[in-house]
Amino acid sequence: MPTELSELGEFELIKELTGDVELTNVSTIKGIGDDAAVIAAGNDAMVVTNDLLVEGIHFDLMYTPLKHLGYKSVVVNLSDVYAMNAIPEQITVGIALSSKFSVEAVNQLYDGIKLACKLYGVDLVGGDTTSSLTGLMISVTAIGRAPFDKVTYRNGAKENNLICVSGDLGGAYLGVQILEREKRVFKENLGAQPKLDDYTYVVGRQLKPEARKDVVEKLNELGVQPTAMIDISDGLSSELLHICTQSKVGCRVYEDKIPVNKETENVAGELNIHSLTAALNGGEDYELLFTINMNDYDKIKDVEGITVIGHITNESEGYNLINNQGMPIKLKSMGWKNFNE
Amino acid sequence: MPTELSELGEFELIKELTGDVELTNVSTIKGIGDDAAVIAAGNDAMVVTNDLLVEGIHFDLMYTPLKHLGYKSVVVNLSDVYAMNAIPEQITVGIALSSKFSVEAVNQLYDGIKLACKLYGVDLVGGDTTSSLTGLMISVTAIGRAPFDKVTYRNGAKENNLICVSGDLGGAYLGVQILEREKRVFKENLGAQPKLDDYTYVVGRQLKPEARKDVVEKLNELGVQPTAMIDISDGLSSELLHICTQSKVGCRVYEDKIPVNKETENVAGELNIHSLTAALNGGEDYELLFTINMNDYDKIKDVEGITVIGHITNESEGYNLINNQGMPIKLKSMGWKNFNE
Repeated sequence: MPTELSELGEFELIKELTGDVELTNVSTIKGIGDDAAVIAAGNDAMVVTNDLLVEGIHFDLMYTPLKHLGYKSVVVNLSDVYAMNAIPEQITVGIALSSKFSVEAVNQLYDGIKLACKLYGVDLVGGDTTSSLTGLMISVTAIGRAPFDKVTYRNGAKENNLICVSGDLGGAYLGVQILEREKRVFKENLGAQPKLDDYTYVVGRQLKPEARKDVVEKLNELGVQPTAMIDISDGLSSELLHICTQSKVGCRVYEDKIPVNKETENVAGELNIHSLTAALNGGEDYELLFTINMNDYDKIKDVEGITVIGHITNESEGYNLINNQGMPIKLKSMGWKNFNE
Repeated sequence: MPTELSELGEFELIKELTGDVELTNVSTIKGIGDDAAVIAAGNDAMVVTNDLLVEGIHFDLMYTPLKHLGYKSVVVNLSDVYAMNAIPEQITVGIALSSKFSVEAVNQLYDGIKLACKLYGVDLVGGDTTSSLTGLMISVTAIGRAPFDKVTYRNGAKENNLICVSGDLGGAYLGVQILEREKRVFKENLGAQPKLDDYTYVVGRQLKPEARKDVVEKLNELGVQPTAMIDISDGLSSELLHICTQSKVGCRVYEDKIPVNKETENVAGELNIHSLTAALNGGEDYELLFTINMNDYDKIKDVEGITVIGHITNESEGYNLINNQGMPIKLKSMGWKNFNE
């Protein structure tokens, strides 16, 4: 009996496929298992990461402008490079697209790709362009650079480290809920104009996320070297568990510390979704989650856009969220489950 | 009126999309326009290349075993690295696949990927695994390394250089013709076993190509630095034109020198296809096409599997094939035309 893909989650599937991979080249510093691979490049480390965006899975062209899509496809990869505490310098872009797209449409997609390159100081150096039978697929590979001792992995968190997060969480998830709602209204009532004016923040978080270049630069400027770092693509809960399991530590974070934007809060109320759920499990916020030595607290405490949400504990204490009633709740990974949908 | 993709070929589309790309980072040595991008990495150059393989466009799962497909998806990328005279050391693999695939099927695909990694000494260091609505898409990024002065571009060919090709040409194209024929027979006469015993060479060239690691190693061992090099993925004619236009030179190659395997010749006869056409325009042979200084002729003349097929001329003489009747024929690019199909 063949095993269906839906019986495994993404992480189990990757483990199944690549668990026996051996690294043989001296230039390979870090393989599968972090935000990016790390390769020796003279005095520097080069980090390399690849992400696919697939039509119908990662984006819906009914409400995703192609320029935004191009921009986002670059940004989500740069976010992985920043999560290694490295600076992205090059990308390659592979696209497969069906003949339903016009040259003008593909140009819009590339306008977004080139805009992201310009704003983040990255060079588009290569790729592949091919046709597909159906739909659009974008594969971006981002390459970044950092001095060896600056590269930050997921496995360096230590007991009593502070757990920090950049920006605010949950917005991107609520943005896609609003877009899906307006899409339903549009379909049921052909021609109904989508009402998005009251949702510019959350919709923007979904359609045009940014990578936290500024946070990596700020930490460097302040002389703060994170002990572990990851970007939040699958939701705070899942990412925090990656850091904890790879660092062999536990954690304690506090509901009342988790940063949520005011509009995100309002939209959550309107949609009858707990904003904490959106922050923990929503994903696609592309904020940075990182741990720092307690000694560095004074350096970051007044930095706008960095919030301390808890601390690292001994592994035996497990992965705990303290809710607003003071009760500990076990954190679970509720991330990516595409094959189950 | 939107412009249809089919109005442009692959190369025109790439030019349209990326013609205005500017390179801003000092670490970027070479961007779009060669077999791979080149990035500074200490004393070495790092080369990076990305290729997509899309179901229904690049492969047909009716006759492509998944293990072979995994193997080929790696090999076609390594071929681009060797074409830069570099040694591949790492790959990342992104796959998008629909729920029609079982875990066992994906494992077969990865068995092929891992086998290619093992045989070519390459580390699988990362990637992405996601679902798709339909079919299978594989995106491989390969990273290689070479001393700066060894990296070989398409634009270095000089007048009077000798034009060399490795192995033999046209086989992969005839292989796919045989596979398509047997597929039609199978469909018309359900259950008819495909007859492939007499076609093992050409079918193997299509389903399980190899990258010419051995040729790059041999040239290095002999102290021969090619002046220009490219891998033959779109057919000899198209690749030779890339070298000539980028080097601003002309060429003269001879039909009777173009290496064609005996079985390829026989199959061509059986299928009523001119074997020269298969060699010039068939593609997917993944042999290396390169130019060398005339002084190096003695070093390579007795090397098995390297054939001198002509020489580089002044640009004003154009791109000529001298056929077996001694008549010059203008070479044309007949490569990739997926969007037209």
